[in-house]
Amino acid sequence: MKAGEFELIERLCRALPYGRRTLLGPGDDCAIIAPSRRPQLITIDSMVEGVHFNLDWLSAPQLGARALAVNLSDIAAMGGIPRACVINLGIREGLDAAFFSGMYRGVGRAARGAGVDVVGGNITRANQLTITIALIGEVLSAALRRDTARKDDEIFVTGTLGDCALGWRIMAGEVKAQGAARRFLVSRFIAPQPRLAAGQQLARMRPAPAAIDISDGLLADLGHILERSRVGAEIELAAIPRSRHYLSVAGDRTDLALSGGEDYELLFCLPRGHSAAALTRRLGVAVHRVGRIVDRRAGMRLRRADGRLIAPPDRRGWDQLESVGSEAKR
Amino acid sequence: MKAGEFELIERLCRALPYGRRTLLGPGDDCAIIAPSRRPQLITIDSMVEGVHFNLDWLSAPQLGARALAVNLSDIAAMGGIPRACVINLGIREGLDAAFFSGMYRGVGRAARGAGVDVVGGNITRANQLTITIALIGEVLSAALRRDTARKDDEIFVTGTLGDCALGWRIMAGEVKAQGAARRFLVSRFIAPQPRLAAGQQLARMRPAPAAIDISDGLLADLGHILERSRVGAEIELAAIPRSRHYLSVAGDRTDLALSGGEDYELLFCLPRGHSAAALTRRLGVAVHRVGRIVDRRAGMRLRRADGRLIAPPDRRGWDQLESVGSEAKR
Repeated sequence: MKAGEFELIERLCRALPYGRRTLLGPGDDCAIIAPSRRPQLITIDSMVEGVHFNLDWLSAPQLGARALAVNLSDIAAMGGIPRACVINLGIREGLDAAFFSGMYRGVGRAARGAGVDVVGGNITRANQLTITIALIGEVLSAALRRDTARKDDEIFVTGTLGDCALGWRIMAGEVKAQGAARRFLVSRFIAPQPRLAAGQQLARMRPAPAAIDISDGLLADLGHILERSRVGAEIELAAIPRSRHYLSVAGDRTDLALSGGEDYELLFCLPRGHSAAALTRRLGVAVHRVGRIVDRRAGMRLRRADGRLIAPPDRRGWDQLESVGSEAKR
Repeated sequence: MKAGEFELIERLCRALPYGRRTLLGPGDDCAIIAPSRRPQLITIDSMVEGVHFNLDWLSAPQLGARALAVNLSDIAAMGGIPRACVINLGIREGLDAAFFSGMYRGVGRAARGAGVDVVGGNITRANQLTITIALIGEVLSAALRRDTARKDDEIFVTGTLGDCALGWRIMAGEVKAQGAARRFLVSRFIAPQPRLAAGQQLARMRPAPAAIDISDGLLADLGHILERSRVGAEIELAAIPRSRHYLSVAGDRTDLALSGGEDYELLFCLPRGHSAAALTRRLGVAVHRVGRIVDRRAGMRLRRADGRLIAPPDRRGWDQLESVGSEAKR
């Protein structure tokens, strides 16, 4: 990689605007941000070419925006306010100045939209284009954690599930779709919407709900809540929210909605008494009740439309998709 | 990559102890750290297999410790106190549980030594083993910045330069060395010592010195100070501190000391009147005066032993090493 590209990327990073909380932006050994009275959230996430994305599928600005969005989703899952990020880029041969300019434009747009300052970064050579972002945020009033779900809580999710996994398969040529359905499903992969406002609304509720963002798939991420909270759960298969476009393309196939991953919706647990309709109004995004927390000894169970409880096919997401699919149809 | 390895690494990360400032450690969407009254430092850095290291050269614990050390050096260069880090691992096929256990043991040892909590992380598949660490610290009393060097300041460096670049070449078989010299030079690559205490001492001085850590080589990093501070510099070639082992192996070759990179020593600029001996006592590490800041229009100049001023061969570090070497000998 030519040194000129490192300098270009440094310039692009420095050109992004930042706010008053950033006391020293890109260009020194560290960035400096103003102290905050609130507890600080920290998360790191990475997108690797060939693993998480493919440059045929996204434009450079879309890639930049998506890299930040998936990190923002972790702040959303804690009910926090994102503040600042640093970006580590692993760059390979064959990417030109226009690509990096576009990518930083996308990062900048997503950052402005979320009120995040891009305060610094690092660039290295690599075999695969890799975007790793560490994001700092603030706890709003209480943090939404994975370890606070209680028996008899009801389990809710925002939005619809499985769209992104289906969009991914459409782009990979594994599933056929046309027109509006294709556009919607593909856009759910390309431009996931971190549920920041919804997470912040949840953080204002008492007790603060247990929550997680659905990045590995509903079953895998619910599994994290169950493990950390030492509880079990019963999920109503018929209640899993699926978009009309998902239904039009995937029919009654539920595997992608259960385990497809990369939904970046929120899953949260509340004591009984909250209606999905009231939560939808409060959070500003569609909310559906999908099940309830039960005793730990019951583990995780799925209730089929015929009322029968079955074991989940597999708690893992993405990688085990196909086997989950075949098992879920048994 | 098998999911089992992801779980192993998660367990290893969670098993590292952390202090009371960490309100929520690994295992949730974000970590939570207690608020601080001091401005916060943020930095991110990455070590990529085949680019920055080679598994033949370091053991797994050494690799883990080194990955954190090079990040700590950025906090040292700001005169800060390191507090917490998150680690993104890109893992390839062919690395076993013993490797990852060793690596986290090394990370943990370096973290304890520096008072840093490993508060979380992320794991992904990749073609190259990649360790990316984002580190949070606190400004001690004033931050050491790159943009505060003034004309007539004197330029100092800690320790000796070029050892690491020479150690790297010894391991690569490009340079021959034996016994104590080999051990010392190789250890300077394997286990760089971030100058945290020295940086903190500098941060207590008024005015706070301009500073940078020497990661790309003296000339390249001094170049960053000159650019940000809009000044020039004159470096005394004979004053560049080189270890006796460097001299015994590399003779009067100065290119590695000027541009070899990865020294992780501090370069700093102070108004006239500070002796290297007094600074050595104060900082707890050998300090040498290597030159002075001059007017911007003079650019960067090197003074040879015969008193003649020459243009620097090239301000870049590592990549351009060989050409720097041949030019410097002209």
